[in-house]
Amino acid sequence: MKKLILLRHGQSQWNLENRFTGWTDVELSDTGLEEARRAGLKMKQASLYPDICFTSYLRRAIHTQQIALAAMERDWVPVVKDWRLNERFYGALQGLNKAETAKEYGDEQVHIWRRSYDVQPPAITPSDPRFPGFDPRYNQVPRQSLPLTESLRDTIERVEPFYNNMILRALHQYDTVLITAHGNSLRGLVMNLLGLSPQQIATYEIPTGVPIVFELDHEMQVIRHYQL
Amino acid sequence: MKKLILLRHGQSQWNLENRFTGWTDVELSDTGLEEARRAGLKMKQASLYPDICFTSYLRRAIHTQQIALAAMERDWVPVVKDWRLNERFYGALQGLNKAETAKEYGDEQVHIWRRSYDVQPPAITPSDPRFPGFDPRYNQVPRQSLPLTESLRDTIERVEPFYNNMILRALHQYDTVLITAHGNSLRGLVMNLLGLSPQQIATYEIPTGVPIVFELDHEMQVIRHYQL
Repeated sequence: MKKLILLRHGQSQWNLENRFTGWTDVELSDTGLEEARRAGLKMKQASLYPDICFTSYLRRAIHTQQIALAAMERDWVPVVKDWRLNERFYGALQGLNKAETAKEYGDEQVHIWRRSYDVQPPAITPSDPRFPGFDPRYNQVPRQSLPLTESLRDTIERVEPFYNNMILRALHQYDTVLITAHGNSLRGLVMNLLGLSPQQIATYEIPTGVPIVFELDHEMQVIRHYQL
Repeated sequence: MKKLILLRHGQSQWNLENRFTGWTDVELSDTGLEEARRAGLKMKQASLYPDICFTSYLRRAIHTQQIALAAMERDWVPVVKDWRLNERFYGALQGLNKAETAKEYGDEQVHIWRRSYDVQPPAITPSDPRFPGFDPRYNQVPRQSLPLTESLRDTIERVEPFYNNMILRALHQYDTVLITAHGNSLRGLVMNLLGLSPQQIATYEIPTGVPIVFELDHEMQVIRHYQL
C-alpha cells in the first residue's frame, strides 16, 4: 500500500497579521515553527517515514518540512522543491490586510475572491514589484507561466500536471511520499485524490500543521484518508 | 567563469566533546549554528548565490547548509544529498573520546590514524550497531560499498567518482555550486581541484564554517581560490 501525506505549512507571520500572502515569501511565526515540529513528531509516532518529499519555493513550506523532518530524524530524505506547489498567487491583493480589504471592497466581494472556484482577484501588471519575473527563483520558469493573478482554478490547473508527472511517478517508485505546501495548492491535490467538485473544494478547509494521510491502492485510488 | 564553493559544517556537539564522530549523526552546537549563519551572510555579502547545492546524509552538514541558505534568502535553491559526501568512516574509533584514545593507544598511533593518508583505524564488524547497514538512510546503498573503517584515501576514493559525475555535471550546467560537507570528504575535493599529493592533503586543514571559493575556467581548471 502506498501512502501520500499532505502537510499544510504552520502559521506564518502574515497569517498572524491577517494579510493576503500568496507568493510573498514570509517566514513562519513561533506558533508555526512549533506546529511544524509537532507534525514531525506525529508522523514519527505513527512510523510514517517519507521516502521522498516535495515542497514549494516558499520558505514557510520549506521550513515546515525541514523542521518536521528534523523532528522525525529524517533530515537526509531527498527533497524536491517546485514553484508549482506555491500558494495561489493573490494578484493585487498580496500584502493587503484582509479586514481593510473587506472595508474597501465589501465583505461579499472579499468572500468571493477567497472562496469562489474561478473568480480571479484584481491582477497586478508585469511592472509591479510583486511580479514573480523580478524574483531570481523563477528565472527557470517560462515567463508566460508566471501569474499576474490566480483563481483557485488557476492554481489547481498548475498543480495538476505536477501531480500527474512528479508525484504519481514518485508514488510508483516509493511507498511513502510527503508533500508540504499551501492551503490552495493542497486543495488541488485533494480535489484530484477525492474526486471533489469545484464547489466542494472551494470550501474544503485544510488545517495547518496537521499531516493528512491518503492510503492508495496500486492504481493510485484512495482507499481511505485520515488526519494524524 | 564557474564557481565552486566548499563549506565545512560548523562545530558539532562531538567536536565540543572531543570525540571521534565519523558517520555518527550528531547535531551542531550553538557555535556551529552561528558559524553556519555567518557563512551564509558572507556569501550573500559577496553575491555568491549558489544555483545548486550538494550535501551529505549527516545532519551537521545538512543543517549548516539549510541555515546558510536561509541567511542568504536562498531556501528555494535545489539541494542534492548524497552519502558519498559523508565524513570519513572512523571504524571502531567512532564515539570514543580522542584524549582517552590517545591514553590507550598512544599519541603517535592516534596521530597516524588521524593524519596519515592510507592507514585505516581498527574496523568494526558488520554486527556492530555502528555499522551503516543498520541505518535506513543507507538502504539504497549497495552493501559492499558500506564501510567498516576508512583511511583518508578510502574516503577520497568514494568522493572522487561523485565529483566526476555529479559535481562536474552541475558545474557544466550552472555557474555557482555549493558543497557543504566534512573535513575529510572536502579534502578529497580539494586534492582533485588543486592537484595536491597524498602527503599535502593529509595535513591540509579546512576551517569550519568558512566558504572557500574556487574559480574555474571552462575546462574546470582552478584559476584561483580564496576564503570568504
